[in-house]
Amino acid sequence: MYPLLENLFAPLNSWYVAASSDEVTTTPLERWLLEQPVVFYRRSNGSVTALDGRCPHRHFPLAKGRVVDDNLQCGYHGLTFAPDGRCIHVPSQPFAPAACNIAAHPVVDDGTWVWIWPGDPARADVRLVPNTAAEGFRTSVRAYRHVRGRYMLLHDNLLDLTHLEYLHAGGIGSTGAADVLEHRTQGEDWVKSEREQVDTPCPPHFAALFGYSGPVTRRFGMTCHVPALHVGYDEFSGPSGTLGRFRVCHAITPGRKCEAHYFVTAARDFALDNQDLTAGMHNALGKTLDEDVAAAEAIEQMITSLREEPRDVLVRGDATCVRGRRLFESMIRRESANL
Amino acid sequence: MYPLLENLFAPLNSWYVAASSDEVTTTPLERWLLEQPVVFYRRSNGSVTALDGRCPHRHFPLAKGRVVDDNLQCGYHGLTFAPDGRCIHVPSQPFAPAACNIAAHPVVDDGTWVWIWPGDPARADVRLVPNTAAEGFRTSVRAYRHVRGRYMLLHDNLLDLTHLEYLHAGGIGSTGAADVLEHRTQGEDWVKSEREQVDTPCPPHFAALFGYSGPVTRRFGMTCHVPALHVGYDEFSGPSGTLGRFRVCHAITPGRKCEAHYFVTAARDFALDNQDLTAGMHNALGKTLDEDVAAAEAIEQMITSLREEPRDVLVRGDATCVRGRRLFESMIRRESANL
Amino acid sequence: MYPLLENLFAPLNSWYVAASSDEVTTTPLERWLLEQPVVFYRRSNGSVTALDGRCPHRHFPLAKGRVVDDNLQCGYHGLTFAPDGRCIHVPSQPFAPAACNIAAHPVVDDGTWVWIWPGDPARADVRLVPNTAAEGFRTSVRAYRHVRGRYMLLHDNLLDLTHLEYLHAGGIGSTGAADVLEHRTQGEDWVKSEREQVDTPCPPHFAALFGYSGPVTRRFGMTCHVPALHVGYDEFSGPSGTLGRFRVCHAITPGRKCEAHYFVTAARDFALDNQDLTAGMHNALGKTLDEDVAAAEAIEQMITSLREEPRDVLVRGDATCVRGRRLFESMIRRESANL
Repeated sequence: MYPLLENLFAPLNSWYVAASSDEVTTTPLERWLLEQPVVFYRRSNGSVTALDGRCPHRHFPLAKGRVVDDNLQCGYHGLTFAPDGRCIHVPSQPFAPAACNIAAHPVVDDGTWVWIWPGDPARADVRLVPNTAAEGFRTSVRAYRHVRGRYMLLHDNLLDLTHLEYLHAGGIGSTGAADVLEHRTQGEDWVKSEREQVDTPCPPHFAALFGYSGPVTRRFGMTCHVPALHVGYDEFSGPSGTLGRFRVCHAITPGRKCEAHYFVTAARDFALDNQDLTAGMHNALGKTLDEDVAAAEAIEQMITSLREEPRDVLVRGDATCVRGRRLFESMIRRESANL
Repeated sequence: MYPLLENLFAPLNSWYVAASSDEVTTTPLERWLLEQPVVFYRRSNGSVTALDGRCPHRHFPLAKGRVVDDNLQCGYHGLTFAPDGRCIHVPSQPFAPAACNIAAHPVVDDGTWVWIWPGDPARADVRLVPNTAAEGFRTSVRAYRHVRGRYMLLHDNLLDLTHLEYLHAGGIGSTGAADVLEHRTQGEDWVKSEREQVDTPCPPHFAALFGYSGPVTRRFGMTCHVPALHVGYDEFSGPSGTLGRFRVCHAITPGRKCEAHYFVTAARDFALDNQDLTAGMHNALGKTLDEDVAAAEAIEQMITSLREEPRDVLVRGDATCVRGRRLFESMIRRESANL
Repeated sequence: MYPLLENLFAPLNSWYVAASSDEVTTTPLERWLLEQPVVFYRRSNGSVTALDGRCPHRHFPLAKGRVVDDNLQCGYHGLTFAPDGRCIHVPSQPFAPAACNIAAHPVVDDGTWVWIWPGDPARADVRLVPNTAAEGFRTSVRAYRHVRGRYMLLHDNLLDLTHLEYLHAGGIGSTGAADVLEHRTQGEDWVKSEREQVDTPCPPHFAALFGYSGPVTRRFGMTCHVPALHVGYDEFSGPSGTLGRFRVCHAITPGRKCEAHYFVTAARDFALDNQDLTAGMHNALGKTLDEDVAAAEAIEQMITSLREEPRDVLVRGDATCVRGRRLFESMIRRESANL
């Protein structure tokens, strides 16, 4: 399975979600992204800085240092770095050598998430940062999970929505979701999968949100924007018309080796000020993510406990997944060829 | 030390204890055996099914699925397997491909233990399942320990009973047990070691069981049925005749890498309905097993903490152990030659 | 960074601190030193014995055995070892083979610490055991830390005292300590670094000890006696003369792979019987060590989490550290050449 192979790790020249906006303050935050430590802090003008998280002098984690006049001072021997990564002070000597400079990573704070470009800074284009907002929808729930499993397992999960009926039975899953026709569309760096279920029982989590448990028509789909984001929609209507529409953004970022970060926001376009509904969505999203994360971690444990990594068998439900994996693979190969 | 070497792991074409009979219900149970995941469940007719524990589609642990009409449904995408391992349903497509079939392992449930044949099913012969019952004895105590040490350490332990005096001092061990003559007999796949101690102090655990602390004659021995079972006896008599006889079956099954499963039953042939005696045996067996397991785990930790695995030095007390190890080695080599 | 490389581990032919004197009793104590298990016990005449911590028969940790007549009996099968490492009893046979002998290590108990010579016993010279006492000083505080980091990180820490101002800010660190001139002297197996700060604010920990928070002159330095000991001094004077002098001995001993033992004593030459002062020193030393250990462990984690071990960048403050590392390297190379 290609993107699981170690020699094809992940695309670097792309925007990834690194943190929730409210996580980044004037107190440095460490996060391992794409198998490298990164330190984040917020400057006095409100902008976010992302630097290599390791002091080049003695490998001390820079997140254990402190921010002084918008610069980051190492907590071990006081080497100090400007927001652009230049070392501007070495306490024991009058000048700061260029060998002490560290990388600064392009970042964008969209108010919900802080995005990072872990690859070549010269190729970072802020216009490529995905716009996760949508007309008429308001994000009411956010969640984060640290996952002890390789990031591709989370993509695989979202690229094959036939898991809803089984992994999320009794929650957001509809009986028969795997039986209806899948409609697939594809672009250069995305693949979209859509389904419609007519006259199907309303899944328990949604029945609780709508206060309606009769039959529904459900239209749902997911677009995988390779390599960092999935945007899904879920629309329900009953005999008296539309019950509600949801929009969920799933950002997946590789972390330490065989670990990943999973950021999710969920929005709705109805009863926007209903706090009970927001609490219900929070509850439903949390349970669903816990099931997804448990699956990824169980598979990671299975794979690593076996003597050798197994090959998987592909079935018809994997058609979208196969296309998604190929997009990952070709993106990684293109990057390697350019270097 | 041969059976500790990684390239000579363990015999596969043999019956091993996989679980206690009462552990296997209609709720799937996962157990790693011989470094492979296996899932067990009980069918409506009471028989036990053992299948590969990993879904071939996405490596999800099948034990997290559920039993539907005596078949096992994967909890991730719903692939369903019959008790013979055939995949009978893939939700996204009308047929189930043979590539999705998984291995089913021969099993025998003897009412106490569920035995599994992890090797070639065609060679499994239910007549070879050891009969652990014995005329006049009733099993009153059962125990299970999960051991964080390679399985051979548990065999080594039972193949050299001179450890009783030291590891089990103050418990089941007799002073001087290592000094008396050892009587050894051997067959094609077993080795038996027997000792007799005349006029020796009754060991504390047994003194408590008999309510008698005077001198005893103790006859004890252990038969190692390579590769999965040891059957031991322990007989005490005092000035007024026989005090009691015990029979202990020790089943050892390799688990995950450098881990093992240890199942034990203890039977007696006297005062069969005395509940206090049963409670006393339960207590004595538990303490003894804890000492044995602690020894195996301490050695495992010692071996793996050293820069390289050490060789051990053999002494006279190891004569039976050496024979046992050779039986393991030749059994493993015969299997390799046949493949 | 040389001493961090695995193929240049540590000098063996030297005295290292193995334990506090009061840790070694008639109950065996296991400690891993220089990546080998060692077992310590005290004989009836009060002297300390140090033997290989692993029984050669079955690798059982000898520290789980017991001392019988000043000899050490293995807790598994009863093999017994004299204080010189000779095996003197194997229960199953009338003689004890030389193959069962184990190494005995030269040790010296100086009343505070037990020193061990892990290398060639023939080269051990008790006259080389460092004398950690000093005229006019009394040791009032001792501490021990088990460090989950390679031992060289602790040496690096003490070889570069510019860390005081940053890692120990708000504690024992003086502002500006990195800015004053460093005076360095060096011998065949030691390097000494000294600094003087005139008219500097008294660091918080010392202000609390002296009950004086005005400006001070601080003279401090550290001598690294390669490979096992650092001896530091710290002298404070105010407008009315000397406030107090301290002397701190830091013993660093490699333990298991990438783990180290850190033993510290702190002495003062004033108000020797003031218990409040002793309690204050205890508190200050504990907090300081916790900061040092946290730094070493953070760096160890950083190094091992990265895909490959990073090179560090040297700055002027590392001049003493570089000399110290070279002393380690040449000592290790000399030892290898002699073997």
